[in-house]
Amino acid sequence: MFTSVQAAVMRHGRLIIDEIDDPEPAAGQVLARTIACGICGSDLHALRHGDKMVEMSRIGALEAGPVSPHVMDLSHDVVMGHEFCAEVVELGRNTGQCQEGDIVVSMPVLFAPSGLHPLGYSNDYPGGYAERMVLSDMLTLAVPNGLDPRHAALTEPMAVGVHAVNKSGIAPGEAAVVLGCGPVGLAVTAALARLGVDTIVAADFSATRRELATIMGATETVDPSTESAVQAWRRVDGRKSLVMFEAVGVPGMIDEAMLDAPRGGRLVIVGVCMETDRLRPMLGVMKELSIQFALGYDPTEFADTLRAIAEGEFDVAPLITGSVDLPGVPQAFEELADPDRHAKLLVEPAQPGAETCR
Amino acid sequence: MFTSVQAAVMRHGRLIIDEIDDPEPAAGQVLARTIACGICGSDLHALRHGDKMVEMSRIGALEAGPVSPHVMDLSHDVVMGHEFCAEVVELGRNTGQCQEGDIVVSMPVLFAPSGLHPLGYSNDYPGGYAERMVLSDMLTLAVPNGLDPRHAALTEPMAVGVHAVNKSGIAPGEAAVVLGCGPVGLAVTAALARLGVDTIVAADFSATRRELATIMGATETVDPSTESAVQAWRRVDGRKSLVMFEAVGVPGMIDEAMLDAPRGGRLVIVGVCMETDRLRPMLGVMKELSIQFALGYDPTEFADTLRAIAEGEFDVAPLITGSVDLPGVPQAFEELADPDRHAKLLVEPAQPGAETCR
Repeated sequence: MFTSVQAAVMRHGRLIIDEIDDPEPAAGQVLARTIACGICGSDLHALRHGDKMVEMSRIGALEAGPVSPHVMDLSHDVVMGHEFCAEVVELGRNTGQCQEGDIVVSMPVLFAPSGLHPLGYSNDYPGGYAERMVLSDMLTLAVPNGLDPRHAALTEPMAVGVHAVNKSGIAPGEAAVVLGCGPVGLAVTAALARLGVDTIVAADFSATRRELATIMGATETVDPSTESAVQAWRRVDGRKSLVMFEAVGVPGMIDEAMLDAPRGGRLVIVGVCMETDRLRPMLGVMKELSIQFALGYDPTEFADTLRAIAEGEFDVAPLITGSVDLPGVPQAFEELADPDRHAKLLVEPAQPGAETCR
Repeated sequence: MFTSVQAAVMRHGRLIIDEIDDPEPAAGQVLARTIACGICGSDLHALRHGDKMVEMSRIGALEAGPVSPHVMDLSHDVVMGHEFCAEVVELGRNTGQCQEGDIVVSMPVLFAPSGLHPLGYSNDYPGGYAERMVLSDMLTLAVPNGLDPRHAALTEPMAVGVHAVNKSGIAPGEAAVVLGCGPVGLAVTAALARLGVDTIVAADFSATRRELATIMGATETVDPSTESAVQAWRRVDGRKSLVMFEAVGVPGMIDEAMLDAPRGGRLVIVGVCMETDRLRPMLGVMKELSIQFALGYDPTEFADTLRAIAEGEFDVAPLITGSVDLPGVPQAFEELADPDRHAKLLVEPAQPGAETCR
């Protein structure tokens, strides 16, 4: 039996490598060994703007009422990591969905006697930046034989794209513009291509990311410093009705998208902007725009995404631009600031000395 | 023949009573004597923030391309007034939709050899704050016998409510919150009631306006200083899904509505906020809100609204809280700043000495 496990701990706004208590599976839970866990842009946000995230989570929790998830307290340790794939190593009582030895993914939520905990943003349960974690048995999904667990770890971020595209209501005969080709924009692009949308204009300042967008299925890519995505859409296919996906999440992007949008344009906001933003409502009024905010996914979308990865409908391999072991996590967070260097970086706790590749 | 007519002219940001050239009907146009014309909040905006309106109109015009309407130039005279009812007094060539003596309303747009002109915001053609105006014959709608022309003049503002409700996609089984009970909020309320929405919570600081909201069909009214409209909705009927109509149009309202909105809430922005606004996108993200901006109406909605007024489906009489003649227009603009005093003020050019009533 382990008594402690290694983890990358968020403590007072910094990432520290430390030992934490080995989590114990309660009834309905299983203990799992983390194989791979993606680093998400939200984790970078949390480290930098954790207070904003907590403030918003509290508002969300108020709304959810009695079923509200616990909100993390930044004055205590948090082990982040919510894009994980893990091997089940021990079953708690009242389990049966999965078995020891199963390789599984799960939505990053834990049902516990104390309520609902968001895995990756919890003070009580570690996320995937720890060697071991507990999962809710009923939420585990077995990774199909033959699927690389590192690829399965991308179920979570790809599901975000699947959900945003579902939420948009876009039909295959319509056109899409994707603003920003980070992991979220790339997931949206892949989901659009899978749906059969045959005009997908993806925009990013980074040539590396534009190249990844093309691999994911973008039919046209643009450098916004040269041509706006909407201009490109008009050039290639301005007759189709347009859905714009905002996947950058920095202040000013929504206003810029509203300024560029065609009359009747539909904006889907999937980029997470933590700060107060400025925009001109009259732009929306003049053009009768609609804005749909999108967050997360539902269990069906999560399972659908795992299946799509397993069956090759999503080729996620090109998105993985490096991996690190746990001691490499703080440095990895630094490196992710450079968009030309990485798309998705995986943390592989059991692979000492894993190095960033590509 | 007249050679000049009296008008309330917007000149360098002020309203001046002056004589203007009597307009002449070109082919496809008719000359009409203005009977009544409502003063719209947008006219107050135009007088105060005309530059913003012009800036936005230019953006809208760019979007519309070759069919863009002319944008007014504030350094030249503008005769506002786009909520009018008028009597046809002379027919131009190639007309036939209406006859001399007909009492008509029209969407405030004029087709001219020089293009499309927005009646009420044009340098070239006067709006309803003039004794006479030219209208496009094909856009005129005859006011049914027995309908007071003063009531018919409310077709335009009521059509704004009809359109916003149509655009929202609300179904009779859903609930609505209306923020702001000025003419726009009241029109929305009436349109919701006509559709059969049986939970309509209307919010306004003014008791007079709340009373009008009840007359228009609100099932619950609240003073936002005591209880938010969303709290009231939860109290009376929190199970139905909710559509919120923002009809105030001042900075901060969209963020406040997003803060109050329930998860999955749908916001329809029908209030016209001319200024740059601040909001927290994360509020939208956390709750997956949608925001639909609405503007104007289409010809079918305009005609439907006239019919609804004529058939008593909309009882607009209580909305008319006063009338003025042309020299009274500048003073009327001042009075409309007080929400407790007026809902809709009519300009009646042919009624010298008309006084504000109620």
